[in-house]
Order: sequence, then C-alpha cells, then structure tokens
Amino acid sequence: MKKTVCILFLSILLIACKEETKNNFIKVTNIEELNTAINQANPGDNIVLANGIYKDVEINFRAKGTKENPITLKAETAGKVSIEGQSYLKFGGEYLVAEGLHFKNGFSPSSAVVDFKISNKDTLDEIAYHCKLTNSVIEDFNKPKRDNSDLWVQFWGRNNELSNCYIAGKTNRGPTVRVSIEGIESINNYHQIINNHFGPRPVKGGPSGETIQLGNSYTSMSPSHTLVANNLFEECNGEVEIISSKTNFNEFRNNVFYKSEGSLVTRHGNYSIIDGNYFIGDGINKNIGGIRIINTGHWVTNNYFFNLIGTSFRSPLAVMNGIPKSPLNRYNQVTDVVVAYNTYVNCSSPWQFGVGTNIAQADVLPKSEIRSARAIRTTLANNVIYNQKGLENIVIENDKADGVTFKSNIVDNQGLAFPDFNGGIIALSLELKKVSDNIFIPTGIPSEIKAFNGFDFNTIKTDLFGNSRKDSNTIGAVVNADVANPNILDKSKYGTSWFSNIAETKDPTTHIVTKAEDLQTKINQANNGDIIAVAEGVHTLNKSLVIDKTITIQSQDNTKAQLVYSGEANTPLFSLQSKGKLSLNNLILQGNNSNYAFASLKENMANHFGLTVSNTEISNFNYVLKVYKESFSERITFENTSISSCENGIELSEETNDKGDYNTEYLTIKNCNFNNVKQNVVDYYRGGYDESTIGGNLLITNSTFTNCGANERNKRLLNHNGIVNVTISNNTFKNNNVQFVSILWGAKNNVASNNTITNSGQIKTEENLVMKLMY
Amino acid sequence: MKKTVCILFLSILLIACKEETKNNFIKVTNIEELNTAINQANPGDNIVLANGIYKDVEINFRAKGTKENPITLKAETAGKVSIEGQSYLKFGGEYLVAEGLHFKNGFSPSSAVVDFKISNKDTLDEIAYHCKLTNSVIEDFNKPKRDNSDLWVQFWGRNNELSNCYIAGKTNRGPTVRVSIEGIESINNYHQIINNHFGPRPVKGGPSGETIQLGNSYTSMSPSHTLVANNLFEECNGEVEIISSKTNFNEFRNNVFYKSEGSLVTRHGNYSIIDGNYFIGDGINKNIGGIRIINTGHWVTNNYFFNLIGTSFRSPLAVMNGIPKSPLNRYNQVTDVVVAYNTYVNCSSPWQFGVGTNIAQADVLPKSEIRSARAIRTTLANNVIYNQKGLENIVIENDKADGVTFKSNIVDNQGLAFPDFNGGIIALSLELKKVSDNIFIPTGIPSEIKAFNGFDFNTIKTDLFGNSRKDSNTIGAVVNADVANPNILDKSKYGTSWFSNIAETKDPTTHIVTKAEDLQTKINQANNGDIIAVAEGVHTLNKSLVIDKTITIQSQDNTKAQLVYSGEANTPLFSLQSKGKLSLNNLILQGNNSNYAFASLKENMANHFGLTVSNTEISNFNYVLKVYKESFSERITFENTSISSCENGIELSEETNDKGDYNTEYLTIKNCNFNNVKQNVVDYYRGGYDESTIGGNLLITNSTFTNCGANERNKRLLNHNGIVNVTISNNTFKNNNVQFVSILWGAKNNVASNNTITNSGQIKTEENLVMKLMY
Repeated sequence: MKKTVCILFLSILLIACKEETKNNFIKVTNIEELNTAINQANPGDNIVLANGIYKDVEINFRAKGTKENPITLKAETAGKVSIEGQSYLKFGGEYLVAEGLHFKNGFSPSSAVVDFKISNKDTLDEIAYHCKLTNSVIEDFNKPKRDNSDLWVQFWGRNNELSNCYIAGKTNRGPTVRVSIEGIESINNYHQIINNHFGPRPVKGGPSGETIQLGNSYTSMSPSHTLVANNLFEECNGEVEIISSKTNFNEFRNNVFYKSEGSLVTRHGNYSIIDGNYFIGDGINKNIGGIRIINTGHWVTNNYFFNLIGTSFRSPLAVMNGIPKSPLNRYNQVTDVVVAYNTYVNCSSPWQFGVGTNIAQADVLPKSEIRSARAIRTTLANNVIYNQKGLENIVIENDKADGVTFKSNIVDNQGLAFPDFNGGIIALSLELKKVSDNIFIPTGIPSEIKAFNGFDFNTIKTDLFGNSRKDSNTIGAVVNADVANPNILDKSKYGTSWFSNIAETKDPTTHIVTKAEDLQTKINQANNGDIIAVAEGVHTLNKSLVIDKTITIQSQDNTKAQLVYSGEANTPLFSLQSKGKLSLNNLILQGNNSNYAFASLKENMANHFGLTVSNTEISNFNYVLKVYKESFSERITFENTSISSCENGIELSEETNDKGDYNTEYLTIKNCNFNNVKQNVVDYYRGGYDESTIGGNLLITNSTFTNCGANERNKRLLNHNGIVNVTISNNTFKNNNVQFVSILWGAKNNVASNNTITNSGQIKTEENLVMKLMY
Repeated sequence: MKKTVCILFLSILLIACKEETKNNFIKVTNIEELNTAINQANPGDNIVLANGIYKDVEINFRAKGTKENPITLKAETAGKVSIEGQSYLKFGGEYLVAEGLHFKNGFSPSSAVVDFKISNKDTLDEIAYHCKLTNSVIEDFNKPKRDNSDLWVQFWGRNNELSNCYIAGKTNRGPTVRVSIEGIESINNYHQIINNHFGPRPVKGGPSGETIQLGNSYTSMSPSHTLVANNLFEECNGEVEIISSKTNFNEFRNNVFYKSEGSLVTRHGNYSIIDGNYFIGDGINKNIGGIRIINTGHWVTNNYFFNLIGTSFRSPLAVMNGIPKSPLNRYNQVTDVVVAYNTYVNCSSPWQFGVGTNIAQADVLPKSEIRSARAIRTTLANNVIYNQKGLENIVIENDKADGVTFKSNIVDNQGLAFPDFNGGIIALSLELKKVSDNIFIPTGIPSEIKAFNGFDFNTIKTDLFGNSRKDSNTIGAVVNADVANPNILDKSKYGTSWFSNIAETKDPTTHIVTKAEDLQTKINQANNGDIIAVAEGVHTLNKSLVIDKTITIQSQDNTKAQLVYSGEANTPLFSLQSKGKLSLNNLILQGNNSNYAFASLKENMANHFGLTVSNTEISNFNYVLKVYKESFSERITFENTSISSCENGIELSEETNDKGDYNTEYLTIKNCNFNNVKQNVVDYYRGGYDESTIGGNLLITNSTFTNCGANERNKRLLNHNGIVNVTISNNTFKNNNVQFVSILWGAKNNVASNNTITNSGQIKTEENLVMKLMY
C-alpha cells in the first residue's frame, strides 16, 4: 500500500514538473529552407522534409532541443525522402532527432555520412548530446575509392542513439559505425546502438571493415559505456571483426549474429559485458565466428552459440595470448575474465585458448610482437556444450590454459572421452529441446550438479531470455527450456518500419542476342540476374561491354558462340564495373594480343564486381584479367576453361601499399588448361603483416599449366605473396620455364599436394615470410 | 513539510531494520587465546588484547562480522599493546576491525605487516571485505635487509580501510602501503586510506620506496576507486614518488604533503581526481615536489602549492611526455587532462610540460624508450599564480605545450613579462592574504575576468576549503579568502588518538672520556644526541666502537685528541650500525694500515646510519670508510679533514645488482685534503637505467688530492658511475697517477668547474652512459 502511495506522489510530481509539449511543424522542400528551419528551430519543432530526392545536401543539424521537447527532422513519409549524391547529416547540440531518411545513390564528401559532431570548434554546440538517428536507411553509400576511408555513422558526445535503422553494403575502408571518444566530451558516453538491422557488409579484402568499432587503441583506457543491444547482424562479413570493442565498460546484449563472417572482439579496452547474444552459423562456413577475447575483466554470460565450425581466431570462444608488457596498440594479456552460463550446440571447437600464440616465430619477429602471455585469473563456469558429433577435445590449447579455472561445465560429447581440466568439465548425456530452427536447448542436467558460485556471480541476474536466475541453480544459458520461440530471425523486429532487405525471388529472363552490336543494348535492358544468350557464330566487337549488374552471358546453344574482340590495346572485352557481377558460360573469347578479356575500372569501383568463367576458351589477349587497385570481387572463378596464347594471365596485384588489402577474397581455378601464358599466369598479392587479416584464398586444382611463365621475371609460375590460404592440388605442370611453381608460406595455411611437376621447377615452402609491419 | 514526513518514515524504517547491536568482550593475553577467540568469534564480539608485548605473533584474523555488528580486535588500552618480533596481522572475511595496536621492534616474516588477505586459497573468507585497521602505529618495522621487499599495509578485497594510523620509518624495499587489485575480488574496491599521519620515510637510495602505491602497470587497466583523503604526509622522502597511482578512478582529496621529497604521480592508470590537496615546501629543498601527470583523464583541481622550488620531475605540476604506443609498463601519452582552480604561491617553476622528453637520446635508447608524445587535449584553466619574485617563464616547455589549452589563468609576476599562450595566462597585480604561515591567498582579481567554463567544469562543486562554487565565478583554489586557519599542520588532526611523533627537544649531555677503555661504556650510556668529549692525548683502542644511536664524538679541548686503532685487519674503529648516526669533530684517527676507520655492518642494517667527519686527521687505514651492500646513510660528509696514507678511501660501491640502488643520498667532501690514498679514493656507485630514480648526490669542493689513485685499476681518481647529481668544483688535483680525474655523465646533472689539474689526467664528459635497463 505504502509503495502505491509513493508512486502516486512521484507521478504527480513528475507530471507537475514536465514542460508542456509543443508541436510546431515546419515543412521544407529544399536545403535552403531546411537550413533556415534549423537556424530558427525551437524546442518542440518538427522540421518536415517534403517527400522527394535531396541531392548533394550537407545538413548541419545544429540546434538545441530539450528532453521534453526535442527538435525533430523527419521525412514527410518515412522512407520517401532520399538523401543522394555527395551528402551528409551532422548533429550538433542537444535533444535532436532525425528520422525516416534514406541515404542511397551517393557518398559523403566528409569523413562520415552521419556524424554526431559538426566541427572541431571549441564550442559546445558543435558536438551532439542526447541526439538520435532513427528509422532510417543507409545503403551502398560508398566512397568511390576503397582506400578512401570514412564512417557511415560516427558517434561523438554523450547519450546519442542509433536505433531502428537498416545499414548495409559498405565496401570502402572504415568501420560502418564508430564510437569516437577522444576528448572528455565523449567519454562516459552511454550511447545506444539498438534495434538496428545491420545488413550484409561484403568482405572488404583487407582490414578496416568492421561493422561497429568502439574507440581505438589510443583511447582504450577511457570509459565508454556504449550499449549495443537487440541488433541483427546479418552477413556482416567485412573483416575478421564484426564488432571491435576498443574502450572500457561497453555492453553487448541480446544481439543476433547471423551467418556473419567475423567475431565480436574485445580488441582493446576492458570490462565488457557480453550477455545474452546469439551466434548462429550454418555448419558449413568456417568464417562465421563467435567471441574473441583480449584484455582484462570481460564477462561473457548467457550467450548461445549454434552450428559454428570456425576455429582459431574464429572459434566460438577464442581467448588470445597477449604480449608481455604489450605496446598500446598490440595485445594485452587476458586476465580476470569470466565466461559463465553460455550454451554451445554443435560447435566444432567451442573453446580455444592461447589463440594467436606465435612463440615459434620468435626468430623472425621483434620481441614486442611475441604473444606468449597466457590467460590468467580466468574462469569458465556453468557452461553447457552439446555436440551431436563427439569431439576429441572440448578445450583446444594453442598454448596451455593453465591460468584458467574450469568449474561445473557440462558437456554431452556423445560418450567420447576428453580431458576434463581437474573435473571442471563434466561429461553427461543430455537431450536437446527444440525452440526454433536455430535454437536447441540441452536439458537433463541432474539437480545434484550445482552451478559454481563464483565471486560476483550474483550479478548475473537473468538468463538468455531475460528470465530471473534468482531462485535457480541452472547451468547453461537458459533457466527454463519451456519457452516460446523468440523469433530472433524475424527481420521485422529490427531496423526501420518501412524498409525490408528481403528480395523478391524472380525467375531470370533470357535475352537472345544474334548480332554483336545488340549485345550492350540487351545488357542494358536486362535486369539483375537475367541471362544473355548469344547465338551461334562469330561476333566481332570493337568496344568494351559494360557490365554493371548481375548478369550471365552464355551461348544460346551447346555450340560455343565466339566473341572476337578487336578493341583498342589495353581495353577489355568485358569492363567489370561497380556492381557488375558477370557469369560467363560456354563461349569462345578471342583478342588481338594487345587488348584484355576482362578488366575492372581504374576508379569508381565503389561496389564489388564478380566474375565466374565456365566452359570457355580464351586466347590471344594481352591480359586475361586485369584488376586495378581498389577493385574488389568476393569471388573470381575460372572452371573448365582453357587459356592459351596470352601475354598475361590473371593479375590481382596492385594493392602494393602493403596495408593488408587484396583484390579478391576467393580466386578459384578448377579444371582449367593454361597454355603459353607468358607471365602473370596467376598473380594474387596481399602485403603487410597483420595477424588479424586472415584472408585471401587461392585454390588451384585439377588444372594443367604448359609452356607458361616464360617471361616471368621472378621465375615463379604462381605468385600469391601474402595470401593466407593457398591450396595447390592435383595439377599438372609441364615444361614451364620457371624456377618455382610456387613458394608457399609455411606459417599460414598454404598447402600443395598431388601435383605432377615436369620440367617446371619446384614448389618450395618458406616458413616465415618477411613482411612490412602495418602498424 | 513533505520532505520531513519522508525522512521520518525512512528513519523509522531504518531503525526497524537495524539488527540489535551486541557487545561481547573476550579478553585474551596470548596468541593461543587470541586464535581461539578469533575462531569462535561471532558478530559483535570484541576481542580485547590485554596490555603488553606480543612477540612473534602471526595473527590471522579470519572471521565474519556484519555491517551492524563487526568483530573487533582491540588493545585493552590503545597503544599499550605492542606487536613485536617476527609478527603480522592478516584479515580475511567481512566487517573486521583491528585497533589500538603498536607494531615496533620487529618485522614481518611475510610479504606484509598488515595484509587484507590471508592466503591465495580459492575461498571467499581468505580475502577481506569491509575490514579496517585503525588508531594503530607501525614504526620502524623493517626487514633486516634493504633488498628484502615487503609492504607494511597491503590492501586486497573491497571496501577496506586504513584510518587514523601513524606509519613511519620504512627503509627496506617496497611501498609502505599498497593497494593490490589483481583479481575481480579486488577491483572497484572503494578502499579508504584516510586521516592517517604518514611520518618520515627516509630516502631509500633507489626505487621502490613509495609511501602509497595503488596497483601496478599490469593492473593499470582496472577500476580501483581507492580514496586517499585527509592524510598528512610528513617528510615522506623514500623516493621520487610519494604516491604512485597505477590504477583507475582513484581519488586524492584534502591531503597535506609537508616537506616531502617526492610527488603525487599518476604513474599508470587514468581518471584520477586530485582535489583540494596542499603541497607545502620550504623554499630551500628542491626535492619537494608536487603533482606529476602521466596518462589520461586526470582532473587536478583546487590544490594549493606553496614555496616549492622543485623543477622537472619535481615541479609543482610536471606533465610528462609519453612514448608513442607505449609498452604497458612505460609512459602513455597525457590526454584529456584538466588542471583547474589551483593556486600556486612562490613556486619557482609552477608548470612544466614535456617533462622526461628524451628525444635527444634517440641514438642510444631503443625506440620504445623515447618519450616524444606531447600532452594533447589538456586544459589549464582558472588557476592563480603568485610569484613574490617574478619568473622569466610561467610555463617551462621541455617539449612544446602545443596540445595544451590555457584559459583564464591569472599570474602576478611582479610586472615581469612572460609568454601568455594565446592570452590564456593573464598578468595582474594581486595581493596576498595570509591565512596561516603556509597559506596565503592571492586576492584582487577583478570580477570582469570570468572563469573559463570548460566541459564538465560544473562537476567541480567546491573549493579548497569545501565552500561551494555554485554561485561563484572565482578563479583559483579559494572562493572566499575570509576563512579561518585550517591548521593543516596540527598533527593531532591526523593519526592515532594516543601517539605523537613530536620529539621533546632536550639539550645534549656531554660525557667526558679520559681513558680509551671507557669510550664504549660512555657511548652505551649516552642518549640520542649526546656528546662524548675525549680528553687530550693518545688513546689506543683494539676493539671497534659500536655506534647505534645519534652521537657526537669530539675532543674535549681545542687540541685534537688522538685515537689509535690497533684492532684486527678489516675491522673498523667505528662500527656504524642500524640507527648509528655519528658526528666526529676535531680528532686524530690513526690505524695500522690493515684496519678501517669507519664501516657499516655487513647485514642487519635495517635502519639508516649517518656520518659527519669534521676537522679531523685520518691516516694509515686500509679503508677510510667501507659501506657494505644494503646499508644506507642519508648523508655522509667529510669537511675540513685530511686523509693520508691510506690504501683505500671512501667506498660505497657494493650495490652492483643494478636495480638503481646506492648507499648514500648525499656524499659531500668539502675543504679536505687527500694525500697518498692509493685506490677507491672516492667510489660511489649506482647501476641500472631508470629515469625516475633521480638521486645520488656527490659534491667535492675546495679540496686537494695529491699523489692519490696510484693503484686504481680503471685509472679514474673519482668514481661515481650512475650518480645523477655530481659537482666537482674548486679543487686542486696534483700528481695523481690516473688517466681521468672523473668521467662525467653529460645527460644528467654532472658538472665540473674551477678545478686546477696538474699532472693528474683530465676530466671527461660522456653524454650518454650505457646502462642496464631495469624493467
């Protein structure tokens, strides 16, 4: 009763105190009117952008609302106002809200698309406090050059919010969202990044492709208190870190990481809380990660890991080795970390310790690079693991886990024995209860097995679903398996009220081309996914075909149509442009020895291209494929294809500034026949030492190379300097005038097997590559 | 009215909830009874130690009190229970209080005298929470060997307290008080170190002599929240850091630093609050420091600095350069620091920036040692400086202060012009208002000069005296100069209720000795400070005289008495033992060429010795002075004394483990005459590179060296390797068969001037000494 009275009193007081809410609508139709409205804005004003396209608008939203009466900048109809061209939105001041905007078809001329700071001037209204962007979309808003770095949302100040937005498609350098905390105005910021849908961010092909980065190593000692909660991360594949936490006291709660090639990484900074998140894999893609731990004091609790097969850096739980007395920008030792009440279902390597140990490289790396400091004062307790297929080890020790205490962890390993770490990992037979397609809860832990009550464990108050742990002694992420399906993959729960990234599936249209001169026209008319079928015969073209959409070009019939390219020297038959994803099938391509079969653009490759060549005969080109700097394709594949009498082969080697970048994630050559390709037969380059750039994938298999590499200056047939994953298998190398078929990087995942080498030099392995340090 | 009702309700509720306070007294008289009482203790129990001496007691105070009913371990009469011999007190559990104890005449056999942890066992009652030591004394409780490290009070756990204690006299390695925060049990500890009197801690002669150390570099990323408040630090001279803060969020409030040779240093860790402290110098001693800043986010506010003449590391405000991407245990850059509302009166170098820059040493030091990163995003605002004698520069830039913003700082520089940093330092004529002998408040700032309102400056709510800043726009530490004398040096306000370190001043007694055999007896009978007067004539002694107190030995009349020492080879005439401080005046000392004039003990030098030799003739000894390892004297002085025909001179060179230690802080040789001293004429050694060990002081002046150094192997007459401060001036060197009179360390404070050198080699300067890195 007393409580009720108190609440009543309080409510009356609050109502009495509250200022009257004003509602003044000011409609604007262009940037000039908008600027005027902003300049004159008073608390409670609603500035309404009339529906339409706003091009090349630099919006400095500098104003001062109040808590009760914020100033709002909103679309007349959410989603019907698009911001295009060279545009940005910057906030400065207090209690400002922007909503309903669609950023597309453009890029920011500044360092950010949405910035919570207007300038570096030393006055308070240049930085944002209590401001938010909500119910908006930022889509493919890429700078034209990959190396030109920017951010799509940059936080400064305090108490700002990014909520209910859809953000996808960033390809250029720089995290998608960044919280900057240089300066006392931005520490203890309590920013909120909530309820967003982070749609696909394609692989960047090098570092600096995080979806969220919180601070950097230089501010890693500062308190941030940023909350990242209830977001969906879908295919956020930019780089090895989806979220890179580099400040202190950040919280990651109830997010869903779905088929995202990367991990949530506590890269710098300390005392993160990672609670109640879902990490959902597909059981196929090894790049989908979990949580990677560096530094001190993190609590990883109530998380759910499903169908993850990543290992090492990409393990569901990867605890790294640190560098003793580490430099500020490298790896501090893991200490005082708690991993408790998590559930792992069908993960092939749930826990790895000593990840990143490189003691073996002590001879080639400086002492300040050697990660030899193992995790200490770290506790793994009350976790549950269910493996449909038993594992040999539950714990993988890349270096000893002797500083880790295991307590009351339960594993159903299908009866297979495993090291139990002083009884801290207990084998049991459990049952899976299905909650949804991706959520299965192991049940059946007998009540006599008590949860370990570690220091401060009483602060873990709820479980994965938010149910109280107070009266429960349950091990694992879930207190009670009798729960409704939380529908974590229902996209309508995240992002805007008006935008969906669910594409309609549509059958492709086939466009038949009988004359060479119609080819470009038909391509232009085609929709994404359509097929161009070229009639039998010889078609001569003297101009490049522009490929700027997803398209397949193939022969109309089984008989290969032939495209003869007579265009200028150093121009390509197929010009692979931004968003141009070409599949070629069953064709004959012939050049004039001075021009190219395929090439990217030299600039304006804001979005990725793609190339798959199947069942095709290629001859008489200067280059088969020439990829220029800052172009990127997720996959380049040649299969069942012959390449002959070309000066150069497949060249992706212009990322020579050694910042870890490269031009394709996967270069695949299967069942191909290379004959008389004089140099750059395959040249695929990544430069710069950075252990966290773990990409570049070259597969050459079941192919034959004959009389190739005659003009290769470095006397290597296959060049793949710095590529981390290389497989060369089941190939035949015959009469190639080189010294080496390949030089493999032994310390990385470079392997060769089952190759037949005749009169073609040898395959050599160098354990450690000498590379430029990137930092 | 409503408020009153609320408070009433609340009070009733609180009273209702409070448990009944129990008061059960258990008197114990020995350790067995004490152990039993502890084992059986219940909340509310008072275990009373009967008055007396408890020797060799290892007290493990393991029990569980409650907030309302703590368990107390107290002296029957505060101060009448002394803990002696090899003893310690350790706390484990909750709500425990120890009070009224006197630790003296002994040392801890463990790593701490008072420890807030009993063992490393993995159970919660081994660590202390809500425990305190109060109203107690720890005095001269030194391990017998200086290199044997310990702590006198070591904090672990959370919410523990050291209050109203007197702690003084630590000489051995290790901080006096340390807060350890390894492990989650000890972070966010909110310990309180309050109302204590930290009495003299003599110079240690090397590092690891802090009075308070909070954490270490390995835990420097963890939140500590330790409060150090209302303490008096009197002559805490142990080393260059009085307080070394190495964790985050510590607060230093309202402490008085009085004639303490050192500084409050934010060595590692970040976001300290240093508010309302007094730093009082004497205008003479250059070693008395202020606040030295490293790292990020500190706020230095409302402090008062008086009569400080330190410079560089020991400046009132010393802002250091950092090392770019510093290793964990070195120097991070200073960023986001605020220094506001402080007052400086008669400080000769109030503000120094770029302290510790060593860019010039880039050739001899590794890159990871070069402090080249200047302070950035740092604000100095609303400070007041009053200089009785105008200074050429208010700001000393060891490296540029270009990352520092100066705003609304007021200086009375007696009309002397100075660089004003973009108008951020304003010259004015002020008046001093005297509050006490050490507190003078500059007044007379016109109200039109407004205080700068920096970001978050509204969090500075009060001034030096605790008066509100709310309605004030006052620049400087004090809002209103009309205040009562706060009596900051009234020692009764700090420490215990029963102990005072104020010594009675007593006129010395003169004891006349006419026969050699009475000498030791008289020395034994004498009190500290007394004088032994030796009658004219020749007195032969064959046994060492034990000196273990402060005593003066001199001739009874003007005519020098002669002491002839016939004791065994390698034994000293004067055996300088722990606490033995000898002044010798107007005597003749003669040996047998194989024995020594003065020597320390080889071990058990738990407390410092001292030696002053004046107007004395010394001859025919093997060693004039031999100081063994781990012996330390604050001062060793020879003046108006002749030393002749000795094999060795003054040797202090056994600290060869190169950890920065040395054997005397000041070695002074004035108006002396050295003749035919064959080797080790002067040999004074410090080894190990550590830029923060800034001691060792050698002064040789107005002296003559003739025919010395003939047997010196390294061909140097004066050896002072690694001594930071060396002055050799106005001396005459004649016919000494050496290559060098001295090799000076150019990078440090080594100077020679006005010396006359004849047939004695030369004085050379080497800019950079190659030394072993200590860390």
